[in-house]
Amino acid sequence: MGESASWRMERYNVVIIGSGNVASHLAKAINRCHHVTQIYSRNISHATELAEQLNDCKATDLLTDLDKSADIYIISVSDDAINCVANAMPNVAGIVVHTSGSVEIELLANISNHIGVFYPLQTFSKDSEVNISEVPFFLEASDGMTMDALKKLAYSLSDHVYLADSYQRQTLHVAAVFACNFFNNLLDISTEILKKEGYSLEILAPLIEMTAFKALEAGAFKAQTGPAVRGDVATIHKHIASLDPALKEIYRLLSQSIIDRHNIQKKI
Amino acid sequence: MGESASWRMERYNVVIIGSGNVASHLAKAINRCHHVTQIYSRNISHATELAEQLNDCKATDLLTDLDKSADIYIISVSDDAINCVANAMPNVAGIVVHTSGSVEIELLANISNHIGVFYPLQTFSKDSEVNISEVPFFLEASDGMTMDALKKLAYSLSDHVYLADSYQRQTLHVAAVFACNFFNNLLDISTEILKKEGYSLEILAPLIEMTAFKALEAGAFKAQTGPAVRGDVATIHKHIASLDPALKEIYRLLSQSIIDRHNIQKKI
Repeated sequence: MGESASWRMERYNVVIIGSGNVASHLAKAINRCHHVTQIYSRNISHATELAEQLNDCKATDLLTDLDKSADIYIISVSDDAINCVANAMPNVAGIVVHTSGSVEIELLANISNHIGVFYPLQTFSKDSEVNISEVPFFLEASDGMTMDALKKLAYSLSDHVYLADSYQRQTLHVAAVFACNFFNNLLDISTEILKKEGYSLEILAPLIEMTAFKALEAGAFKAQTGPAVRGDVATIHKHIASLDPALKEIYRLLSQSIIDRHNIQKKI
Repeated sequence: MGESASWRMERYNVVIIGSGNVASHLAKAINRCHHVTQIYSRNISHATELAEQLNDCKATDLLTDLDKSADIYIISVSDDAINCVANAMPNVAGIVVHTSGSVEIELLANISNHIGVFYPLQTFSKDSEVNISEVPFFLEASDGMTMDALKKLAYSLSDHVYLADSYQRQTLHVAAVFACNFFNNLLDISTEILKKEGYSLEILAPLIEMTAFKALEAGAFKAQTGPAVRGDVATIHKHIASLDPALKEIYRLLSQSIIDRHNIQKKI
């Protein structure tokens, strides 16, 4: 977008609604260049704990007590709670956004004339440091002025800012479920398999890193290795026979997926 | 194992049978501390190409022409070709090993009195550099003297050397199929989904790296995020509805796997 340098100049007063993983990481990152004036959480001790890590920031557990003068309100709660917050929140003059990959912008329409989505495509945990400047942010806004402000906020956090409507955001979210949530599930399954022979997942660390590296460098289709892409049905059957019942169908379906994607005429 | 320093002293004459990805990486790495005297490949130009990258190394496409005086013969061909090589290879006095995760040691019993398995747990491609010193090697041997030699060879390549019988090796291989081959399949699927909206997999790079990092640090079970572990069935159904038919069942099955593993009482 090129204009990133000037985006960094604006300083916003921001209210964060939520105190979970995404809310916490965002609040701390935003507070570096802007002023997070208030944290809301249903649980006042969670709100207080987060507010105390910021400068001059109040905590509340009442949506009716929200600071009415903020420039931007960031609703960062679980997807199904966004609706509850949207219904209970007072009308405000500032911009109201949520941070969800799968919730439509329209859910916020009753709260403000300036609404948007501020979606960071990353998995956040309380304990893990995140380099926020490398996190891609996907923005949607109800109008041009709102989009300008969200761009300024996003560029003050990250070098990777994109526009995405609700449909594109869902596409990104679905892709992320495969590459992150399901990938993690495979690692959980690997951990269980290894544990039976006393190994830890750590033993696969160089392999996991190389797999990610090769897929990103050469493309995942080209980088595919293993019994399925070799059409090695004998090894596949041997592996399936060794697995617990709950894992057999996952092994079969993913092997068949590789076989089909590579146009190998075999059925497992 | 502690004895690694002294293992590095021995210098073996090694014959490599095969010229594929694993064979090429092993030949070059082994030739740093040892002498790879000969490369066999069914395809003489492949054998020659690899041999020319080593010092004083011959190429052949005839198993009957194998150098009879080598200390160690490494059969590094596809799983189903190991049997063919084992049947066609002359008897030798040296140690004979294969490099496969899923083939039993016994397949080599007719070639030599000293047989073994030399299994590097990594995904090798011709174009990608591999830091061989970080690759875990899993060893099996017919006798103590053979194991000693294989340990010396492995420690001259890597700091991560383990013993594993055929059963343990299969366990490792199955776990690696989940964490590497199936993981790569998920990245291939993500690439396809992203492509429809003009995004490349690169956009998920920080997410993929963080997912691997968190699973290795905190454990994959604890690190699980996403709609399934939140029991967010509405989002799951929305995602499944958006997917091509070939991907619906994969999404459903992996989501159900996460739900079941986390003891959430829901059915998708």
